[in-house]
Amino acid sequence: MGEGPWAPLLSDLYQFSMACGYWRGGRQGEAAAFELFFRRNPFRGGFALAAGLHHCLAFLQAFRFSKEDIEYLKSVLPPTTEEAFFEYLRTVDASEVSVSSVPEGSVVFSKVPLLQVKGPLLVVQLIETTLLCLVNYASLVATNASRFRLAAGPNKKLLELGLRRAQGPDGGLSASKYSYLGGFDFTSNVLAGKLFGIPVKGTIAHSFVSSFTSMGEIKPRSLLPLGGKEPVDFPSLAETWLSRVCRLLQVRLDQVNRGELAAFVSYAITFPQNFQGLVDTYCVMRSGIPNFCAVALALNELGYRAIGLRLDSGDLAKQSVEIRRVFRICSKQFQVPWFENIPIAVSNDVSEQSLEELAAEGNEIDMIGVGTHLVTCPLQPTLGCVYKLVEVNGCPRLKVTEDEEKMTLPGSKVVYRLWDAAGFPCMDLMALEKEPPPKAGQEITFRPLGRTKEAGKVTPAAVETLHQLYFKDGQVCQPLPSLAETKAHAQASLDKLNPIHKRLQDPEPYQVAVTEKLYSLLTSLQSNGS
Amino acid sequence: MGEGPWAPLLSDLYQFSMACGYWRGGRQGEAAAFELFFRRNPFRGGFALAAGLHHCLAFLQAFRFSKEDIEYLKSVLPPTTEEAFFEYLRTVDASEVSVSSVPEGSVVFSKVPLLQVKGPLLVVQLIETTLLCLVNYASLVATNASRFRLAAGPNKKLLELGLRRAQGPDGGLSASKYSYLGGFDFTSNVLAGKLFGIPVKGTIAHSFVSSFTSMGEIKPRSLLPLGGKEPVDFPSLAETWLSRVCRLLQVRLDQVNRGELAAFVSYAITFPQNFQGLVDTYCVMRSGIPNFCAVALALNELGYRAIGLRLDSGDLAKQSVEIRRVFRICSKQFQVPWFENIPIAVSNDVSEQSLEELAAEGNEIDMIGVGTHLVTCPLQPTLGCVYKLVEVNGCPRLKVTEDEEKMTLPGSKVVYRLWDAAGFPCMDLMALEKEPPPKAGQEITFRPLGRTKEAGKVTPAAVETLHQLYFKDGQVCQPLPSLAETKAHAQASLDKLNPIHKRLQDPEPYQVAVTEKLYSLLTSLQSNGS
Repeated sequence: MGEGPWAPLLSDLYQFSMACGYWRGGRQGEAAAFELFFRRNPFRGGFALAAGLHHCLAFLQAFRFSKEDIEYLKSVLPPTTEEAFFEYLRTVDASEVSVSSVPEGSVVFSKVPLLQVKGPLLVVQLIETTLLCLVNYASLVATNASRFRLAAGPNKKLLELGLRRAQGPDGGLSASKYSYLGGFDFTSNVLAGKLFGIPVKGTIAHSFVSSFTSMGEIKPRSLLPLGGKEPVDFPSLAETWLSRVCRLLQVRLDQVNRGELAAFVSYAITFPQNFQGLVDTYCVMRSGIPNFCAVALALNELGYRAIGLRLDSGDLAKQSVEIRRVFRICSKQFQVPWFENIPIAVSNDVSEQSLEELAAEGNEIDMIGVGTHLVTCPLQPTLGCVYKLVEVNGCPRLKVTEDEEKMTLPGSKVVYRLWDAAGFPCMDLMALEKEPPPKAGQEITFRPLGRTKEAGKVTPAAVETLHQLYFKDGQVCQPLPSLAETKAHAQASLDKLNPIHKRLQDPEPYQVAVTEKLYSLLTSLQSNGS
Repeated sequence: MGEGPWAPLLSDLYQFSMACGYWRGGRQGEAAAFELFFRRNPFRGGFALAAGLHHCLAFLQAFRFSKEDIEYLKSVLPPTTEEAFFEYLRTVDASEVSVSSVPEGSVVFSKVPLLQVKGPLLVVQLIETTLLCLVNYASLVATNASRFRLAAGPNKKLLELGLRRAQGPDGGLSASKYSYLGGFDFTSNVLAGKLFGIPVKGTIAHSFVSSFTSMGEIKPRSLLPLGGKEPVDFPSLAETWLSRVCRLLQVRLDQVNRGELAAFVSYAITFPQNFQGLVDTYCVMRSGIPNFCAVALALNELGYRAIGLRLDSGDLAKQSVEIRRVFRICSKQFQVPWFENIPIAVSNDVSEQSLEELAAEGNEIDMIGVGTHLVTCPLQPTLGCVYKLVEVNGCPRLKVTEDEEKMTLPGSKVVYRLWDAAGFPCMDLMALEKEPPPKAGQEITFRPLGRTKEAGKVTPAAVETLHQLYFKDGQVCQPLPSLAETKAHAQASLDKLNPIHKRLQDPEPYQVAVTEKLYSLLTSLQSNGS
């Protein structure tokens, strides 16, 4: 679950029908090349982050059909399907497949292959759906996370808490993993923490708060001061502090909810070094905040520091400013310097847009929890990756449809990322494999992809080969970075990108182009097309 | 994977912090009741389908922490957490939990609990996130599927093919399962077929078609007529038919793509009884359709019948009408009666809206494949189910926030579905457990939920208790229907619903109400609230 290699039947039926077609024609072993790419940058943005590669590699390494799988396939393929085809399927694995890819976490652009897959036609066709399934959502949610990070700025802590809103258990695990990769700091998902080593965080829920109705329900009631030996009656101490706080803040003591206070006191007794509050079960400013301050100040008297509070409704920016003001007043009045800096966490349907609004409005928020808008990617719920045949037996292949956007670029390619003199990547240039690589300092003629196809010229300051070989002879052929390393790579990859492409709205399009040779091949195949 | 019970760590960290809080206060065994519900009907519609229950039950039955789980929890909870808490966790299971639910597949409405969960406070709190995760997406996608079914009408076949666009592998499996439940006929997902017994279907892909460039590539070339013994050179036969078809349709023979013809011929030789074509790799009317007709007519000469074609781009309705016209012409000209009825399947980013447009425009489509817009639910990517504490130790609990929509209804409830004289359900009425049940033919006073809270009166023609007890003493306590039975229940449940609530746009809201007693409890708790 979550991390395992996936069953080879996790695929569309037509892959097996086609496989049978290839096999029947003796074509199963023909050398084929596929490319996996998306057609438009997601979220109307200027880039995406590539993710899911490590899962794909695990899937390939384990790619083999069990007897049971074959029995099931027999039951769903036409009854006339030859027995020998099924016998052949039993022998199929990925030992002749090779996969080149951009490193996981890299910034990528539309139309440029993320994965290049080569191998026997039948096998590389069969794995299409699973590869798409493993890359599509992973890359989408990583990209979405990176946009939340850009919107929030580098200093806010971001917590992913979307498990309950994800597409089932594994949807939730993928969301946690790839949100972390894309720039989040924490997840609330414990299993994701265990499986992937992501730091987990959490606060408390309204149900905990509302499960208490009075101070009489608190058990146990005593708390040892930090380093002390004489237990203190903590509920009484909190009540004392509540009176002081209410006087200071001019809040009516009788309107403060005592069930809420009991919940906070109880939590503080359980985790005196990790006390935090959820302050909006009842009225934030007339109950939640006085109660929180009372408990935090009572803890302070015993040598402990509260670690934060969470706000889950209302105008988050405005309330955070009011709360910070209260913290400052308490800090000054009671001479508790750390009090003014207690971290404020918020949640409540936070979106990319609301993050931008928060930033514009000004706020005192330290950590932001994001669920639904992160994991379900409502601005664009799929990346729309496709997996297209580009070469068979050394001959380039092309799909020419009436829909120009659905066209493909023929031939096995090498992709070069060209860097400008300012140190930014400025163009992804696709060339045919047999072409000599472009060189730094030498002028190159290119054809941009898109509306205008006029030839242009560019002289790169540096040239990088975008893809690396990750899978060969049935094995992963280079050491894979850890998730933390991949996350760092994603951040570095984004840091290097020119800010004009990182604008969340109306980014400058990044240039993606083909060489003259590839362009000629494309036009010659198009004219033969139909 | 897909079907297994889920790990108990698939949860948010704060559940464990709160569990520790309850345990520390000796409250772990307090009798608590939670309700799982959503606040608004999804997709601006009038209803939802409840799904995910069977998964929840499997999860509960297996709910137990391993040693390894406990070790991991120790590493993420505050280091001061008492060892005895972890020892306690090792003993926790769901043996004292009971779950009542609407039967899986039932029509449900906002604010009415789908699940009612009772048991020891600590356990029923701990399972919150997992239950939400299992119900939220399942119900959402089932509802989405049912809307596609309503938009398509009862006669079109609907094929789910969203695996590649889902939230990872299990997202894809959940999508296939619950789309079937909600009204789809088939899935393309082979593993979903194997695991859940869903009928699987598929056609062929563009890559298969474009992998052929000429008729010379076809191997083998001979095909036995149905029941015959003399193999026929099938490529030649297809070429002969292509000339005839082109003459009849006045299409230029030299413009028909021969790679496409080779692909169709090859597929026909592999599956002579199951031939189908994908007709838009090149030009539909000048290449795809002539090629498809030629191969289908050649097969017909040998006694076989083509089973269909698929169209994946362009104006689907208009093209289907043109294609049907061609089928009729061929049928008549070549005296092949079945030819005019060859099923036409379409795909290409089909949405609920495009289905409605197809229906309005008129079309000759028999089967519709839906991927992205079904599995990612872009119109509303989450159902937003919540799980709220309603009772502790027999005392009702309420969350009063400044956000009225986020309020909860206190107390353990029984929900009655009231039926009108016309045989439609007309109101879901929530009552406190201790209230006597409403009776058919007797007038009941109710308070509607929503803006107006004026008391109203209703005399139901029939009364149904909505929830059944499914889980007790750690065991599933009634036989669970199969997926096919659940699908039939969903269909029946929808069939019984008044059409005014089934309109996809601007449906009449279904009445959800509370009894006078529950209303009094709510108002009395609200006035104590803060």
